[in-house]
Amino acid sequence: MNRGILIVISGPSGAGKGTVCKEVLRNAPSLCLSVSTTTRKPRSGEIEGVNYYFIGRPKFEEMIKEDQFLEWAEVYGNYYGTPKAFVENRLKEGKDVILEIDIQGAMKAREKFPDGVFIFIVPPSMDELEKRIKGRATETEEEIRLRFSKAFSELKYITKYDYIVVNDEVSKAAQKVLSIITAEKCKVERNLDLYLRLENVKEGN
Amino acid sequence: MNRGILIVISGPSGAGKGTVCKEVLRNAPSLCLSVSTTTRKPRSGEIEGVNYYFIGRPKFEEMIKEDQFLEWAEVYGNYYGTPKAFVENRLKEGKDVILEIDIQGAMKAREKFPDGVFIFIVPPSMDELEKRIKGRATETEEEIRLRFSKAFSELKYITKYDYIVVNDEVSKAAQKVLSIITAEKCKVERNLDLYLRLENVKEGN
Repeated sequence: MNRGILIVISGPSGAGKGTVCKEVLRNAPSLCLSVSTTTRKPRSGEIEGVNYYFIGRPKFEEMIKEDQFLEWAEVYGNYYGTPKAFVENRLKEGKDVILEIDIQGAMKAREKFPDGVFIFIVPPSMDELEKRIKGRATETEEEIRLRFSKAFSELKYITKYDYIVVNDEVSKAAQKVLSIITAEKCKVERNLDLYLRLENVKEGN
Repeated sequence: MNRGILIVISGPSGAGKGTVCKEVLRNAPSLCLSVSTTTRKPRSGEIEGVNYYFIGRPKFEEMIKEDQFLEWAEVYGNYYGTPKAFVENRLKEGKDVILEIDIQGAMKAREKFPDGVFIFIVPPSMDELEKRIKGRATETEEEIRLRFSKAFSELKYITKYDYIVVNDEVSKAAQKVLSIITAEKCKVERNLDLYLRLENVKEGN
């Protein structure tokens, strides 16, 4: 069985990573979503085990010490992390795992999973990004300002990714991500077993 | 404007390159098919300028001398070649060009277009390949034997390609090729202008 592929959906704050991710999963139910662990408070409507695993700081720090995270970071005073065992096990079972994380997290994940597929979601323009960040009613003025200036500085990380998807329309962006997954599954280096199988048939003849 | 992408559809004899190519073009009419030049006799139903440009040996040899081919080869006593100017001009205009050629030709095209996308079409099994080659009523017994043993030896070229697509069902194989094209257009190295555009908007603010 082929090992699964880790697909990392990342990009600056406000690019719409979460929405694109949801649309991808709606179209490809066999994909397995990696759920992160965080110490931040749930936003209205967020569900435990679906959006995040919400845990306390002492528990999170214990998991850090035990090296249980694929990546973790402290952002705006809260911890966020991806439990390593969850991802590893799914990939071993041949399942593709989709992981939505910020840029810091993606850079750490890249070190541990160099054969992962790293997709950078960008807004169609910086004006649009500003609008989207401001549209989030859950943030304070100061948080908005921080997010916007961070998003700007994060653009330079584009070159560390494999693919870039412009999120002008969610359904189109999701279709592009799905095409990228299909294409990656066709890559020669991920299919050397197929070659050997055809070769063996040859020997058998 | 972004330069177009050269998509090379190749693979062993009998894998169904031509049928997959036709189905891809039916679904993506904006793709531009590169028509090859050959000295072989037209098969029943083949149309000049659609399937091939059919020319005589003296004219073909003149074009070789003038270095007018992206690649050319002599196969089973006939010349086949891809006129270079046609492909170059379309790529410069930002159009994507699809090229269906045998493995020898693909290897030469790779030297001249290292940023091309090379897709290897394989039959689902060697038994199926044998069936398909025998099913071609246009070949003599000797031609069939030659084609089959050549197809076997050609399998080892898989590792020289970027992608492998199993042609178990033509519509599925074509969808995979279309996904590969979409994914390639999202590759970061093909979109550095987009990054610069976003960066410039940043400077402007």
